[in-house]
Amino acid sequence: MLDAYVAAVHAKDAEAFLDLYTQDVRTFDLWSVWSYDGKPALREMVEEWFGSVGTDTIGVEFAEVRVEEGEVVAAISAFTTFRGISAEGEELRSMNNRLTWVLRRDGDGWKIAHEHTSAPAGDGGKVSLRRS
Amino acid sequence: MLDAYVAAVHAKDAEAFLDLYTQDVRTFDLWSVWSYDGKPALREMVEEWFGSVGTDTIGVEFAEVRVEEGEVVAAISAFTTFRGISAEGEELRSMNNRLTWVLRRDGDGWKIAHEHTSAPAGDGGKVSLRRS
Repeated sequence: MLDAYVAAVHAKDAEAFLDLYTQDVRTFDLWSVWSYDGKPALREMVEEWFGSVGTDTIGVEFAEVRVEEGEVVAAISAFTTFRGISAEGEELRSMNNRLTWVLRRDGDGWKIAHEHTSAPAGDGGKVSLRRS
Repeated sequence: MLDAYVAAVHAKDAEAFLDLYTQDVRTFDLWSVWSYDGKPALREMVEEWFGSVGTDTIGVEFAEVRVEEGEVVAAISAFTTFRGISAEGEELRSMNNRLTWVLRRDGDGWKIAHEHTSAPAGDGGKVSLRRS
């Protein structure tokens, strides 16, 4: 699941990305919006995200991944690093997030039924995008 | 679980609050710190929180609660409202959060193995504490 996410984001492949999620996914994203409810709302968000980076690619790394594994419901929490990389391979920017996924079994595989990303708010309520 | 949380916070009862969590709980809190790992770290945070409000009480409400239910792992996502209420019953302040809980079965009951609270970051990276 983590590898599939990294690959879809790196390829800026919205269809592969959306295929990781349930139809009724609820996304609590770090930025601006309280909740994206359902795959159409997520599609709009991810198409805007992938479209916004132009010819750059997006690298994702996960750290300190923790799994709660059940039969039909599972969950992952981790710290993520997102990097913007130019067509020439130069790192342009990077930021850290905290990620929680709630996964629901779908046949033989799993889909993301809920995603929650954030960064902690410090002085003046401003989020820190560099993990300390 | 939601009712027990509301009651423990209203009573500012750190022991009842901590009893809702697993020993190895990982907490991604809205404020300041990237992660509280384990119950001792959570204890320090909650004792500071309950201590900081003096004679005020803290009211919590949940909205749009969504549950993913499994046999040994379950999850809840919701929007929360926290209110500071004076000893005279006056509302002093309030804020909204987004909440995700990952629950692990513990004998006949459930414990919170992972908590993630946040609010979305808007202009200038500042978090909004009022749901729009």
